Amino acid sequence: MSPDAGLVARMLGVEVALLGALEDVAGAPSGVTDGLAAVPWVDAALRGAVGEAGYDPDVLTAEAAVDGNLVIPLVRRVRAEATGDVAAWFHHGTTSQDVLDTALVLLARDVLADVATSLGELGRSLARLADEHRRTAVVARTLTQQAQPTTLGFKVAGWLAGVTDALVRVTQVRASLPVSLGGPVGTTAAFGDRGPQVVAALAQRLGLAEPTMSWHTRRAPVLDVGHALTVTAGAVGTIAADVLVMAQTEIGEVQEGTGGPSSSMPHKRNPAASVLVVAAARQVPALVSVLGASAVAENERPAGAWTAEWRPLRSALDLVHEATARTAALVADLQVDRAAMAQHVRTLSMLIETDPDVSAATDPWVDRALAAWRSAGAALPREGTWTAYRPLGESP
Amino acid sequence: MSPDAGLVARMLGVEVALLGALEDVAGAPSGVTDGLAAVPWVDAALRGAVGEAGYDPDVLTAEAAVDGNLVIPLVRRVRAEATGDVAAWFHHGTTSQDVLDTALVLLARDVLADVATSLGELGRSLARLADEHRRTAVVARTLTQQAQPTTLGFKVAGWLAGVTDALVRVTQVRASLPVSLGGPVGTTAAFGDRGPQVVAALAQRLGLAEPTMSWHTRRAPVLDVGHALTVTAGAVGTIAADVLVMAQTEIGEVQEGTGGPSSSMPHKRNPAASVLVVAAARQVPALVSVLGASAVAENERPAGAWTAEWRPLRSALDLVHEATARTAALVADLQVDRAAMAQHVRTLSMLIETDPDVSAATDPWVDRALAAWRSAGAALPREGTWTAYRPLGESP
Amino acid sequence: MSPDAGLVARMLGVEVALLGALEDVAGAPSGVTDGLAAVPWVDAALRGAVGEAGYDPDVLTAEAAVDGNLVIPLVRRVRAEATGDVAAWFHHGTTSQDVLDTALVLLARDVLADVATSLGELGRSLARLADEHRRTAVVARTLTQQAQPTTLGFKVAGWLAGVTDALVRVTQVRASLPVSLGGPVGTTAAFGDRGPQVVAALAQRLGLAEPTMSWHTRRAPVLDVGHALTVTAGAVGTIAADVLVMAQTEIGEVQEGTGGPSSSMPHKRNPAASVLVVAAARQVPALVSVLGASAVAENERPAGAWTAEWRPLRSALDLVHEATARTAALVADLQVDRAAMAQHVRTLSMLIETDPDVSAATDPWVDRALAAWRSAGAALPREGTWTAYRPLGESP
Amino acid sequence: MSPDAGLVARMLGVEVALLGALEDVAGAPSGVTDGLAAVPWVDAALRGAVGEAGYDPDVLTAEAAVDGNLVIPLVRRVRAEATGDVAAWFHHGTTSQDVLDTALVLLARDVLADVATSLGELGRSLARLADEHRRTAVVARTLTQQAQPTTLGFKVAGWLAGVTDALVRVTQVRASLPVSLGGPVGTTAAFGDRGPQVVAALAQRLGLAEPTMSWHTRRAPVLDVGHALTVTAGAVGTIAADVLVMAQTEIGEVQEGTGGPSSSMPHKRNPAASVLVVAAARQVPALVSVLGASAVAENERPAGAWTAEWRPLRSALDLVHEATARTAALVADLQVDRAAMAQHVRTLSMLIETDPDVSAATDPWVDRALAAWRSAGAALPREGTWTAYRPLGESP
Repeated sequence: MSPDAGLVARMLGVEVALLGALEDVAGAPSGVTDGLAAVPWVDAALRGAVGEAGYDPDVLTAEAAVDGNLVIPLVRRVRAEATGDVAAWFHHGTTSQDVLDTALVLLARDVLADVATSLGELGRSLARLADEHRRTAVVARTLTQQAQPTTLGFKVAGWLAGVTDALVRVTQVRASLPVSLGGPVGTTAAFGDRGPQVVAALAQRLGLAEPTMSWHTRRAPVLDVGHALTVTAGAVGTIAADVLVMAQTEIGEVQEGTGGPSSSMPHKRNPAASVLVVAAARQVPALVSVLGASAVAENERPAGAWTAEWRPLRSALDLVHEATARTAALVADLQVDRAAMAQHVRTLSMLIETDPDVSAATDPWVDRALAAWRSAGAALPREGTWTAYRPLGESP
Repeated sequence: MSPDAGLVARMLGVEVALLGALEDVAGAPSGVTDGLAAVPWVDAALRGAVGEAGYDPDVLTAEAAVDGNLVIPLVRRVRAEATGDVAAWFHHGTTSQDVLDTALVLLARDVLADVATSLGELGRSLARLADEHRRTAVVARTLTQQAQPTTLGFKVAGWLAGVTDALVRVTQVRASLPVSLGGPVGTTAAFGDRGPQVVAALAQRLGLAEPTMSWHTRRAPVLDVGHALTVTAGAVGTIAADVLVMAQTEIGEVQEGTGGPSSSMPHKRNPAASVLVVAAARQVPALVSVLGASAVAENERPAGAWTAEWRPLRSALDLVHEATARTAALVADLQVDRAAMAQHVRTLSMLIETDPDVSAATDPWVDRALAAWRSAGAALPREGTWTAYRPLGESP
Repeated sequence: MSPDAGLVARMLGVEVALLGALEDVAGAPSGVTDGLAAVPWVDAALRGAVGEAGYDPDVLTAEAAVDGNLVIPLVRRVRAEATGDVAAWFHHGTTSQDVLDTALVLLARDVLADVATSLGELGRSLARLADEHRRTAVVARTLTQQAQPTTLGFKVAGWLAGVTDALVRVTQVRASLPVSLGGPVGTTAAFGDRGPQVVAALAQRLGLAEPTMSWHTRRAPVLDVGHALTVTAGAVGTIAADVLVMAQTEIGEVQEGTGGPSSSMPHKRNPAASVLVVAAARQVPALVSVLGASAVAENERPAGAWTAEWRPLRSALDLVHEATARTAALVADLQVDRAAMAQHVRTLSMLIETDPDVSAATDPWVDRALAAWRSAGAALPREGTWTAYRPLGESP
Repeated sequence: MSPDAGLVARMLGVEVALLGALEDVAGAPSGVTDGLAAVPWVDAALRGAVGEAGYDPDVLTAEAAVDGNLVIPLVRRVRAEATGDVAAWFHHGTTSQDVLDTALVLLARDVLADVATSLGELGRSLARLADEHRRTAVVARTLTQQAQPTTLGFKVAGWLAGVTDALVRVTQVRASLPVSLGGPVGTTAAFGDRGPQVVAALAQRLGLAEPTMSWHTRRAPVLDVGHALTVTAGAVGTIAADVLVMAQTEIGEVQEGTGGPSSSMPHKRNPAASVLVVAAARQVPALVSVLGASAVAENERPAGAWTAEWRPLRSALDLVHEATARTAALVADLQVDRAAMAQHVRTLSMLIETDPDVSAATDPWVDRALAAWRSAGAALPREGTWTAYRPLGESP
């Protein structure tokens, strides 16, 4: 599904769910959605089926460049082509920002589901490694210098604790994501005194939370997503950064299972996955800072701040999505060179006359990291069954 | 208290609390802290009393520029000057990063206490305003254009909901801030198998949470502070941005109670406080992005990433501290011009032939915002009694 | 041309030009590029002709996700499929980063050519407006308040001066962009002592500057592009921000010629173009900050910093490209309401008892802005004839 | 001089210079500055002499928190206390932003003079090193892996080329910094048709450039400073990042002359200076991004954007100032371990069967880097005689 097709599918899904909510509690005629059947491309668009029934999301994107956002051309086309009561009720009581914000929330929820799945895989690998290497002594390094002995189990438990931090925040934010339905100025005036009921009905249909009130200019939900992405980028970026150090030629303690080739030096095996993960992690905080700046939002809907969120939010979701999956694969396949580790420990131990076995100290901490992981991961299905976007018609 | 004096006081407080914890559970001799009495400047430093007993934090700052951080010269001086068992036990089992991280956590906790107090004041003012103006019709504006009528009560309820979002996150992060005590490489090896007990004893003495394990390279606590600051900056920045629009000469719906003078135009009353709040809010996300980038941290302690956190963290705390207090004062004193509001509503209503009374729609939302505020604010003392930094010797 | 196809075309263009340079000065056999004729998709790829001869850039993108960058799979495929001497000489003496950096430089040069063309159009419109409105009095506003009279001509001259600042920097950076050809570790060792000659030959073929030496870890060229983009985003963002203020319902001094419709409020004409321009300008500095962070680059080629540049650089180029074109169209079509301007000036003049005619003061400044513009624009062809990417075979 | 005292001194210097310019070309009575003699703290403030004559910049800072900026309380106090014609002419025709912008420009010019001096020292050290080590073979590393041999001279020449890039931009921006004098709305209306003459006279007195026209909302000068700082941070950050790699325990090719002690591990010698330089370089791009965002500035003077510049600009100047001086000291004192370098080269050469002597290839590039440095450094006095801030009364 092309990026824009994925967003259009969710936008249409929101509009269709709103029709349903209007039928439920706001007087829309029963079967109002039937009129959509007259528009074959709508069904294709809901399924993200580019090319089917002439559906081309790029046409909407081009019109959005004039209209200001993707919702306006979408609504115009559906109203013009649908039959029955659709034209009267489609988009009733809502506004572009509601539809796009809710669609982006659904996108975030779905991408974060994949992220959680990758964090789950990654955490399970790390938990195994941490337990397996409780007594594998390795050199700990601080400010680039060999410092004292530690264990690989403890080091990996630290990675796991970072992944746990990320999973906790991803899980929390997924559960808290609200629907947006305020109408043009946030008041839900089109629904008379039944605004909260319509909002609740829509939230229920989409499986989203109900907001306290309109969040057109109150962007904590977007900032929460940004925060979860930042913590996740930090967690996987730290693992990759450690692999980069340990995979250095002069250290050689680990190696990526499937290192990247060099375009010019056949003898090298580049830690290509780690490089890509670190590169992704370096971009996320700057993208998230745009979301932070957009949280200052004047009037009932701002002129620029909100619009500036779309691209960095989607970029940050993409980058974290890719980086977590890549880190999970990288760790699953990580090659550990125990001999190199032992050699470095011996050298250090002679230098500072230390017993390299610190497992009495590290074991309780490894236990705690494993316990925290199990607790955070409990909510997580063992297989990747978190729901991605469900097309119209499937049960929620 | 000068900024550095505040930090040094907290660093020393951490070291002293650690001596106590070592006495509690790690075999330090009873009364080990007595040897500090031989060093008069230590007591002054703990109270932030610059100039007393010759205490000058700038001397430490200058040495830190060579040593790499503030902890190293501090420890060197105390060890050299204290008597009794202090030299043997001071800084035992810990490392610069533990001490500085814990001191920064204490600083963040204390600044966020003030921020929470300001948010409390601000929220109470907004709650009153929202309730008082449930039926004051005002024009809602979107993308700079007059759009539909709303009520001032609803608009202010939106501000209140933003403040509630901020207070919830500030409260959560304050309660979750962990002590740092991992020792040179995070293993607590100096405490044998009693690491978790020493950490717990120190956490208890400082009123901080116990971490799962060392967080030298796992920076979620710092990112959580950054996130709370971003949400808060967005909440108060949005209020100020709205005041800026409504205070425009051509709109004139509100005015700051004590507008700033102009250096060159006596007829102007500048919305000086709102400008300063917006200016602060614009800086916070970029500062927080440095924290995000530092979350990628290699080795047991990184060479640069951690060091890069100190300054932006302190700047962001400062800016949000000042901006929340300023917004609370601004809203407490805000001048509302009902006539100007009514005039704009009349013009709009004629144009779009709308009944300007939308309070049936907005009242339920105002109720929800008030309820959410009361729920979030329940934990908040009505007066500003949140604890700021307590000098050594006061009960926790 | 899809974004990746555009980049692949330039990468291949670099490799082909390098073959030519090797033929010129480094001993490659005459006619070495003929062997590429055996690979039909190469010709399609050079022209960005997706789909022709089975060319699909997405395949390369997918392989790049494993290899670490786009160059590696490209080189592998060409070497495997080409005949004659190609396999022996293709990519000789160079490395992925050379090829990708040079391709990104070519992309930047071409996008900035379009940006310059848009700035040219925009500047010409502004110069006309500034001259035409030398005596159109308007209210100047500072900190949101009406302050003193100015002229529309002076205000527009300020916009023009900003566009001039941008054009100067865009022109400078385009002329200074260097080729990258250092080989695996920057030494050009594969060319013996003829490195500088090969670099000069390649630079000459591509119309790029010769660098002092390899810039794999010396990123001033990328930072210069980022700076030109930031200045340009500021210049067009400021125009759009002013239009947003002046187009407010309560001010009504200007209006976009083709305002965006509202999805829910037919009476509104949203300043949609200005909103999109401001939204773009808000994103650019954060993207450029990633480039700044990547300028700290360890070793002969860094593990993460460079890779993190690709996406934000391309995003920032896209955003500024779109925003300058949109601003040029917006200004060409801007509706000025002289009556509204005059009305505001009358009200202010009564208030502060000022003569609204300040043209004696403003005229010399308008003259200076026009002169600076003419001087900066002299290098700029009147029509958009700046060269975009030229496919292989066309003369440079 | 405290940071605020330094800024106040420059603000006052601007106001005094303006009095002189008004005397020169705008009709102020001869000897108008004499009335300042009645205010002893003004003389102290001009010299940054905190405490003398009761001068306390913190009082102004406190008042600025209400007034909105530092200029307003300063002007109020001088006008109230000075005698003669001062009250009538002090601050005539100007506005807060002019004075503060010009003072910040003077600050930037002076800080960048120090930066240039440090870059000069650093460059001279690097030029010596590059020449001395033309034949010292070292291993080049890419993506953390040993790749091919290079020479230390070539590596250092790369550092030098980065320093040259920085010096070129610092020199250019210093020469281009303009005075700001537009008056309340940029029109210089208070000077009738003599605006350009007054601006020229003030520029001449302060040794600054004349702007095309008012730059209150046209922020290229600030962005240019930010760009020069970013390039400089990248140049010194790259040197420090390389030292961090080469100083690793497992590599040991270089060491800082005066390494930082560890607070807990006596056997370690931390590369403390390099860590501080890298940490500074990591902060600069985010700070500069705030300047970029502030370049979008509405109206004749914006409500928030400009105010948001002050702190990040000063922070970025501080950080780069400190980082360049520290890098100059670090390089001057760098310990090179030729044996360790040779050992790594031998190992690599056996592995890839390469002749480690690549000086035939690298020498021409070293020559080019040295030549570029000499050309850039020609403008630079050999000793640090660039002018820092000169108090009133000294010749320019």
